[in-house]
Amino acid sequence: MLKLRPLAIDTHREAVAYLNRACTQYRAEEFLALEKIEIVNDGKRLTAILNIVDDPGLLAPDELGLSHEAARAFGLPPGSPVRIEHPSRPESLEAVRRKIQGGILAPEDYAAIIGDVVGRRYSKMEIAAFLVACAGFITPEETLGLTRAMAETGHRLHWKRHDGSPGIVVDKHCIGGIPGNRTSMIVVPIAVAHGLTIPKTSSRAITSPAGTADTMEVLARVDIDVDEMRDIVDRVGGCLIWGGRANLSPADDILITVERPLGIDTRGQMVASILSKKVTAGSTHLVIDMPIGPSAKLRDRADAVELRKLFEFVGHAMGLRLDFVFSDGSQPVGNGIGPVLEARDVLKVLRNDADAPADLRERALLVAGHLLDFDPALPGGKGLARARDLLQSGAALKAMERIIEAQGPASEILSPGALAHDVVAPCDGHVRSIDNLRLARIARMAGAPAFKGAGVDLFKKAGDSVRRGEPLFRIHAALDSDLRFAADLAERDCGYVCGNF
Amino acid sequence: MLKLRPLAIDTHREAVAYLNRACTQYRAEEFLALEKIEIVNDGKRLTAILNIVDDPGLLAPDELGLSHEAARAFGLPPGSPVRIEHPSRPESLEAVRRKIQGGILAPEDYAAIIGDVVGRRYSKMEIAAFLVACAGFITPEETLGLTRAMAETGHRLHWKRHDGSPGIVVDKHCIGGIPGNRTSMIVVPIAVAHGLTIPKTSSRAITSPAGTADTMEVLARVDIDVDEMRDIVDRVGGCLIWGGRANLSPADDILITVERPLGIDTRGQMVASILSKKVTAGSTHLVIDMPIGPSAKLRDRADAVELRKLFEFVGHAMGLRLDFVFSDGSQPVGNGIGPVLEARDVLKVLRNDADAPADLRERALLVAGHLLDFDPALPGGKGLARARDLLQSGAALKAMERIIEAQGPASEILSPGALAHDVVAPCDGHVRSIDNLRLARIARMAGAPAFKGAGVDLFKKAGDSVRRGEPLFRIHAALDSDLRFAADLAERDCGYVCGNF
Repeated sequence: MLKLRPLAIDTHREAVAYLNRACTQYRAEEFLALEKIEIVNDGKRLTAILNIVDDPGLLAPDELGLSHEAARAFGLPPGSPVRIEHPSRPESLEAVRRKIQGGILAPEDYAAIIGDVVGRRYSKMEIAAFLVACAGFITPEETLGLTRAMAETGHRLHWKRHDGSPGIVVDKHCIGGIPGNRTSMIVVPIAVAHGLTIPKTSSRAITSPAGTADTMEVLARVDIDVDEMRDIVDRVGGCLIWGGRANLSPADDILITVERPLGIDTRGQMVASILSKKVTAGSTHLVIDMPIGPSAKLRDRADAVELRKLFEFVGHAMGLRLDFVFSDGSQPVGNGIGPVLEARDVLKVLRNDADAPADLRERALLVAGHLLDFDPALPGGKGLARARDLLQSGAALKAMERIIEAQGPASEILSPGALAHDVVAPCDGHVRSIDNLRLARIARMAGAPAFKGAGVDLFKKAGDSVRRGEPLFRIHAALDSDLRFAADLAERDCGYVCGNF
Repeated sequence: MLKLRPLAIDTHREAVAYLNRACTQYRAEEFLALEKIEIVNDGKRLTAILNIVDDPGLLAPDELGLSHEAARAFGLPPGSPVRIEHPSRPESLEAVRRKIQGGILAPEDYAAIIGDVVGRRYSKMEIAAFLVACAGFITPEETLGLTRAMAETGHRLHWKRHDGSPGIVVDKHCIGGIPGNRTSMIVVPIAVAHGLTIPKTSSRAITSPAGTADTMEVLARVDIDVDEMRDIVDRVGGCLIWGGRANLSPADDILITVERPLGIDTRGQMVASILSKKVTAGSTHLVIDMPIGPSAKLRDRADAVELRKLFEFVGHAMGLRLDFVFSDGSQPVGNGIGPVLEARDVLKVLRNDADAPADLRERALLVAGHLLDFDPALPGGKGLARARDLLQSGAALKAMERIIEAQGPASEILSPGALAHDVVAPCDGHVRSIDNLRLARIARMAGAPAFKGAGVDLFKKAGDSVRRGEPLFRIHAALDSDLRFAADLAERDCGYVCGNF
């Protein structure tokens, strides 16, 4: 038997085991060719990638090293005796092979695959194979199978109203792709102010300049586990936390680490990811914001209708009530792109500041209106007016303050990055268009979201008149090199098209 | 700048870099989320997966650790100053994304993708995404683009005849899947005895019980680099070496580490892999053996014709002359499965032993006959007779002895694994069929090819009469546990169907 030894190596969501090449019990080389091994201790088993160590200082020949991720997943103390075995190839990989060959998988196949993914029995390479095979072709029925499998591996929450009766639990989701679109941080306070239950979890940015969780973190703690989340929602009625810590959808948390770097963003996977998370979060009613525009995920209305139908087919089968908002996705929303700048815009809207970005406010009200229209107690069609009342009266701001207080306010007030560079208009005329993807890339290059104050602050939006040399936007950064990279990127193509109509 | 420090960790073809979480120059967490980093020293750049180390004993905060693979690829001495940067995402991943979405890629796209794969700028996850996207759908023109790209990144060999004139250079290839099918070790000596140039490279097993390189290694060194290979072929006329060390097709060597574990074995990738390797090895004329059978890769003749056409389309465009043998793939060839047992069969055939397996001999002669028919000096249709002459006269055995001598004979004579277990017939009757895949799995479980003597020795082949309790085959193993696993597997399903016709 080998002795377990946790190594202080963080392998980022991939379980890695280490074996000394001089190991006497096992032929390291043989296992290396297999790439994966199975670690066994009585009833416990863990599949891990194998690395071979040639330095006895790092690892003795009778030890088996484990990375952070592997040690956490295996859960046994240092020194525990373990065996290693040829990996029992997860049987569900056979289904993946069928999918690669163009087959249609049954719900049981998706359940087995997702079970093995969550059980850490898939390498990233195998996850990529599964996702790309599904990206090639997946039927609506298969998407439902995938959604159900993802929901069933999650930690499902149940909510009660304050009086103990089961009420509606609302949520909203934007399919993404539009920088600055932080409506959640306005919609949730409005819903809370109205008295609805809205346990909102959000993601952090992986390839974008900010996720809602990154922006909310400028104002409050978001790294909150599921017990604390339950407590906050019970007390306040809603929350705005990071979904990763809450671990509601472990399958999605793993799949996303492969999807994002590969740029896989297919309809089937989007629908399964969103709806499975909403189901595990205990939501019953959901508004989905679908921005349409030339640099948005949805290029035209027909495209949006097709996606809406897929959401409806899967969502209804999962027992969700759905409503949809087709919104303007032609340019960024609000002025700021990057956590601090976006949080500033959100607060301006909640405070009814005169210079609050109107587009962010109106879009948030539109979504909130649809959400409030789910409330059986409200007369039909009154949602939008009620949402506006709650915002203008300051009730939404007060609700946001309660949410921040419950989650724990941020310890310091952050400012936009001190280093700045202005990008100016090349000619007199009007702003004809702004490319969402380009602006997101510039903000990201400037350091967002790693540096919360980094990003882009837009002074002009589509339709605004500009004069040659007038600033279009300002890049904020914390590091010289980031500012230079972002400025260089903007120099090549700043994402704005200016000219005369 | 960080100081480079090679760590004694073998990460098996994936470049990994290690950064201390307490690193003062860089925010480790930020880079971890990206998963990959770019390591820079003046003109040198290397993309690597990032792991984070929390133990200063392992790595100081001002050091950057590199795995074996990364250190070898980067090629700078310990202590060299390096920077790390956000990875410049290989531009060719954009083409992969298009392929995932069902697009058709241009030859330049394949050139860029393969260039980045060979340049180690793709993670295994990204390689899997590329391969699975191609598995979904690839046109013959695209297969040609992929083949050309793979051939062009390889180290291309050129051969001359002993008199200095450019002659034909022959090769043979079997598409695989049939255990025991070691015809190469008979065909190459026959071709050499005839005077043809045949620089044969073979693969080691990844998921099968033996590759030709594993079996040849029972008799001679096969781990031979390209300079030594050139010398051997110049002297002897042919060789039987492992292709991995010769590094003729670096793209294939990398792709295969992802294809095999995922069980991706599509037509397009098979054709690109085989033909690109033959082109870089300098072959001009190639016979492809295509076994057809219910548990072979090709299930029927129509299937084989379709594959043949793809080989022809791509092969002719690459300037190769091709010939094909449609062979019996209904059961294993020869008696032994596993390196030592297969080598024994090969030697029996070369020595014209009375108990040499006739099926292995006849199949090798068939392929050798087609190969010899490429020789312009031989009258049409005389290849098979000439091959039989060369075998029966002992000329082929002598040629094999010259090849073994040139490559370096094995230092010890290995025997079949000492532990044995017989699997017996369940009833009187005949052997109706033998499942290739099942027998390969049993042999693999018994320890082949890691233990060269492990494997399966078949006593009965399809059509043979058997009596209840009579041994069908013997499992050989070196370890008790391996024998038990293999016997258990055979107990559940031994791959033989016995009964009466």
